[in-house]
Amino acid sequence: MNGIDPIPYYLYEDQHWQEIQGAVTEEILLCIHVNGRELVTFMCTPHNPDELALGFLRSEGIISNMEDVRLLSVSDRGTCVDVWLNYSNVELPNRRIITSGCGGGVTFDDLSLRLEPLNNSGTIASNQVFERMHDLYQNAYLYRAAQGIHTSALSDGERLLVVAEDIGRHNTIDRLLGKAMKQALDTRGLVLITTGRVSSEMLVKAAKMGIPIVVSRTSSTSLSVSLAKIWNITLVGYVRHNSLRVYTAPHRIVIPDNQLFRAGGSSQPGGVGCYPDEETNLELNKAVVSGSRAAGTPWSPSPFEL
Amino acid sequence: MNGIDPIPYYLYEDQHWQEIQGAVTEEILLCIHVNGRELVTFMCTPHNPDELALGFLRSEGIISNMEDVRLLSVSDRGTCVDVWLNYSNVELPNRRIITSGCGGGVTFDDLSLRLEPLNNSGTIASNQVFERMHDLYQNAYLYRAAQGIHTSALSDGERLLVVAEDIGRHNTIDRLLGKAMKQALDTRGLVLITTGRVSSEMLVKAAKMGIPIVVSRTSSTSLSVSLAKIWNITLVGYVRHNSLRVYTAPHRIVIPDNQLFRAGGSSQPGGVGCYPDEETNLELNKAVVSGSRAAGTPWSPSPFEL
Repeated sequence: MNGIDPIPYYLYEDQHWQEIQGAVTEEILLCIHVNGRELVTFMCTPHNPDELALGFLRSEGIISNMEDVRLLSVSDRGTCVDVWLNYSNVELPNRRIITSGCGGGVTFDDLSLRLEPLNNSGTIASNQVFERMHDLYQNAYLYRAAQGIHTSALSDGERLLVVAEDIGRHNTIDRLLGKAMKQALDTRGLVLITTGRVSSEMLVKAAKMGIPIVVSRTSSTSLSVSLAKIWNITLVGYVRHNSLRVYTAPHRIVIPDNQLFRAGGSSQPGGVGCYPDEETNLELNKAVVSGSRAAGTPWSPSPFEL
Repeated sequence: MNGIDPIPYYLYEDQHWQEIQGAVTEEILLCIHVNGRELVTFMCTPHNPDELALGFLRSEGIISNMEDVRLLSVSDRGTCVDVWLNYSNVELPNRRIITSGCGGGVTFDDLSLRLEPLNNSGTIASNQVFERMHDLYQNAYLYRAAQGIHTSALSDGERLLVVAEDIGRHNTIDRLLGKAMKQALDTRGLVLITTGRVSSEMLVKAAKMGIPIVVSRTSSTSLSVSLAKIWNITLVGYVRHNSLRVYTAPHRIVIPDNQLFRAGGSSQPGGVGCYPDEETNLELNKAVVSGSRAAGTPWSPSPFEL
């Protein structure tokens, strides 16, 4: 499988050694050239370098769509992507910022002013969050073969539309964007689901894609929480079998009909805070709730460990 | 606590909402200037920016020791470190490589040729690996307060000498290096223990520090396994209560006296492969084995999830 390297290792367990014919995640140095000039080199998983390059260029604002690309070629060894654009007056960023999602800004103010708040009114039902995270685990092929890899997906709530895997969290987002571009899929209004921690570079990439709901298997940082508040993005973390945390804009997470009254009418702490507009949520809720996960559906037992 | 931001969130669990007074990891954009010129900006945890800057500069080869530093000042908001060197003819790297451990190299060949193989003959007992990983968990203060953070340490096998935490895996290594510089601690021959995945930039940083044994709670990538082979570094992954995986140079992991004969003399697969020089290991083993962890010592139940 491209992206997995068979590697034998020695396992020491319960005071015994054995040799295991195992595998690890493949990591390469990928170089991206634009109009013949080297733009960047980064570490990534080797499959589909074209999609990764396309997504990265769009994420960095160097291209807007496929029309901007005249030619894209991948070197024989798959470690270099040459992109030739339909215009020659492209300005490549020079600033050395060590995170691929943040070319240009230095202060938090710069960062927060760069994008407009999202006024998207989309919602997702809590059950759908659990189900799509389950789907993500099911689609984590490289992870299941060798661990040590992140998986992300774009979803309309009902199903996963595109899925991407990479050793780099932020690369998975660029890959999703590249796949979406190739399929002419509009990312705006979709839900981003990821196994990775949502640090600021992840949130910036999501915001640039017009994503109103970002769902992670794991944590958020203070900077991503602050940015999500300013940009009105719903940030969800620590999604487990039947629990999740909502850090910002909780109105986009609705609970199913049969649970709404219980929560809204109870004296549970935070119940009202979560439902500032209960009527609206009730209506939206009816529209978006899909069937609950069938009782007894096995839940992926393996939390990601990276 | 510096590095932790109190953040309230909504917890949805078992069909109930509640508001939690929680916390997330603090993330800032740190800017490093050298001789008045901006070198780099990256995301990190805000505590001890001086140590992070020192370690980063040494890791990048810009300084060799504390003698090279004339003045180091941290801005009032703690988001900028100004370093003035004792020499003005410093050449700052210009290449845009999106990983902080790898300024300059593009191909694997470049990378592998940059350092000499380590001929260090140090070893560590399997029990010591388990014990030091346990110590690492005990010292993960920021992680226990907010999760979403990595912890690394340098050890002589018997105890942890310096410990560092950051949202960035590779930042923890730079922080260790910065702390070591400030304490005039020689990193050569020490053991690196980390919660983070060992991708190539992690291994490159370890190799630059002269570390012969790299131990991780989690996975390795193909590139780090290849580099570890070439540089003769012992790469250990997936350390758990009583199990671990050795990817390269297994001769540096020795098992206690009372287990060696069983392993060496048995027909277990890989037993011989692990002990190409059984006599030597037997001797080394006696020298380095410390007391076993007392029976019944509680093991940290919380695997890191990042």
